[in-house]
Amino acid sequence: MASYLLPHLQSKQDVDNVIRHTEELVLVLRFGKDEDPVCLQLDHILAKSVDDLGKMAKIYTVDVDKVPVYTRYFDITLLPATIFFFNAQHIKVDWGTADHTKFIGTFQSKQDLIDVVEVIFRGAMKGKVMVRSPLDPTTLQKYDLVYKDF
Amino acid sequence: MASYLLPHLQSKQDVDNVIRHTEELVLVLRFGKDEDPVCLQLDHILAKSVDDLGKMAKIYTVDVDKVPVYTRYFDITLLPATIFFFNAQHIKVDWGTADHTKFIGTFQSKQDLIDVVEVIFRGAMKGKVMVRSPLDPTTLQKYDLVYKDF
Repeated sequence: MASYLLPHLQSKQDVDNVIRHTEELVLVLRFGKDEDPVCLQLDHILAKSVDDLGKMAKIYTVDVDKVPVYTRYFDITLLPATIFFFNAQHIKVDWGTADHTKFIGTFQSKQDLIDVVEVIFRGAMKGKVMVRSPLDPTTLQKYDLVYKDF
Repeated sequence: MASYLLPHLQSKQDVDNVIRHTEELVLVLRFGKDEDPVCLQLDHILAKSVDDLGKMAKIYTVDVDKVPVYTRYFDITLLPATIFFFNAQHIKVDWGTADHTKFIGTFQSKQDLIDVVEVIFRGAMKGKVMVRSPLDPTTLQKYDLVYKDF
């Protein structure tokens, strides 16, 4: 699947609707800007994962400029920022960094994303609202590498 | 109403249930410890407000030690911490401090609480997920006054 075929949410109401109505699946919301190089890398990985994650996750992209309310609500200042939900609940992830509310930057591989989604899915099915990331924290991008001029 | 009559949630499941099933009303969750002096002050104000807020809010208290998962999830390190929801969504409030996720300490009066709940109720009914506090930030307690030894 080409990355431009990832479904794009266009408004706060679109985001509200997918949060409210995505049931028994991990909801993956990528907040960013389509033309940003790091977003392009991430979107490529997201798009490649859609088939593998079909029974565990739904993935959407959101342009931060179209949803200023959520951009502020989630305190998004670095892009891309990926946020996970399960049954309308924001699932926090301990990435080994100070911010458990979102993942900043791109995953290194499709398998990394799949591993994260699996941990969230299994945890959430057991009622967890916070899980520990299965990724090696030392492989996470340093924040200063990430586009933030918006 | 005596403050010890405020309904106490006893477990993560209790908290999950009220978050999920409180509809069209502001859900007020006071995380703290019943015996803490600042919690006692706050609970007194909460209890006095129950009748006035009956059409706008439901108020519960939660002992932080009984819900370690939520205490960690909401990053609660100072007590009491009051968190607001509307239709299962965590409503953030700009108190004029860095933390928009919760209110720390006690409200100065029943009217202060009612004013906050009204702003949240009206905002949330319009689809807002974040509102600005109507309280004067200079009247907020300094954090170092608040019990935090837990």
